[in-house]
Amino acid sequence: MVVKVHGPAIASATRRVLLCLIEKEIEYEIVHVDMLNGANKTPEFLKLQPFGFVPVIEDGDYMLYESRAIIRYYAEKYKSQGTELLGKTIEERGVVEQWLEVEGQNYHQPIYDIIVQLKFNPKLGKPVDMKLVEESEQKLGKVLDIYEERLSKSKYLAGNFFSLADLSHIPFTHYLVNDVGKEYMIRDRKNVSAWWDDITSRPAWKKVLTH
Amino acid sequence: MVVKVHGPAIASATRRVLLCLIEKEIEYEIVHVDMLNGANKTPEFLKLQPFGFVPVIEDGDYMLYESRAIIRYYAEKYKSQGTELLGKTIEERGVVEQWLEVEGQNYHQPIYDIIVQLKFNPKLGKPVDMKLVEESEQKLGKVLDIYEERLSKSKYLAGNFFSLADLSHIPFTHYLVNDVGKEYMIRDRKNVSAWWDDITSRPAWKKVLTH
Repeated sequence: MVVKVHGPAIASATRRVLLCLIEKEIEYEIVHVDMLNGANKTPEFLKLQPFGFVPVIEDGDYMLYESRAIIRYYAEKYKSQGTELLGKTIEERGVVEQWLEVEGQNYHQPIYDIIVQLKFNPKLGKPVDMKLVEESEQKLGKVLDIYEERLSKSKYLAGNFFSLADLSHIPFTHYLVNDVGKEYMIRDRKNVSAWWDDITSRPAWKKVLTH
Repeated sequence: MVVKVHGPAIASATRRVLLCLIEKEIEYEIVHVDMLNGANKTPEFLKLQPFGFVPVIEDGDYMLYESRAIIRYYAEKYKSQGTELLGKTIEERGVVEQWLEVEGQNYHQPIYDIIVQLKFNPKLGKPVDMKLVEESEQKLGKVLDIYEERLSKSKYLAGNFFSLADLSHIPFTHYLVNDVGKEYMIRDRKNVSAWWDDITSRPAWKKVLTH
């Protein structure tokens, strides 16, 4: 069964899911959702995703949304296929979950605010809230300082294995590094910088960028 | 092995973990962290939890933080003990994860902002940002409208079984209902109201409130 991924292929949350599907060697097909024209707010789409967010996956009769739930589902369902993304033991999975929650709860909000303000608002003709950018950069910097320390002790966030925890950081950090002039936040931190080069050199991410 | 839970027993994130441990019939002991006196920012505590947040669990040599990671870990480790909290199949777990992410990503921020502004800031002598309260209430109301629709179709968020997704909502919603004059947000929504009565009538929550 080919997994249908509803969402713009370039949306960060869609990319999180695509990265996982590619790492797990799962066939997929992208069903574009034209968010700029409000296709994510139509009654049909809201039946799939009541909040109007992307992506949604359709796998036969099974539908699921929330990108971090989707990646957990496929990493578990196809545990022995492709890259192992949840660790080998329940204890390793616990640490993967810990860093995946750190990403969702501590890292995501400030990086999201920076990207929205500096990348998307100018394109949409909306004002840029520089105070929010500064506050978010301070918050993100503190989180990255903790990552720097963590990555001095293990190659990846959850240990010496690549996992969903690392993968989940890639799409938004890609914008931070490439699109909004904040690459120094990664490069000024030696271990974070090496980690970033490592996780983005994986073939899965290169394939995501071709969409 | 008795699980040590580092954190004030009345902190919402600690309560999330205690709820899970009680549902799973796991023995625990609370190691109080005096956050009002900055015990969560000492060098010793930051070794356990570099962000200075509670709770942290200590289970023999195994340490873990982030409450939603901890509850997943114990729900999986003791799958056949106590209440099943992750569903019976990988597909059910996927839906549990979906609603657990909805809680973490959509529900948590507005309810957290309301509680901080209306419950904690007055106690700490800090100003109350009523604009933030109003915006947060609007956001939370929209999320609750979607819950109302969802709970018209299934008894609990992830289906007709109680799960981590429901459990994770209880601690902060308890404050919303009991401490800040916003009970109507739950009571004005018939299905949400019935769900709330159901999930808070469980013995595990009653036990948490005795701490």
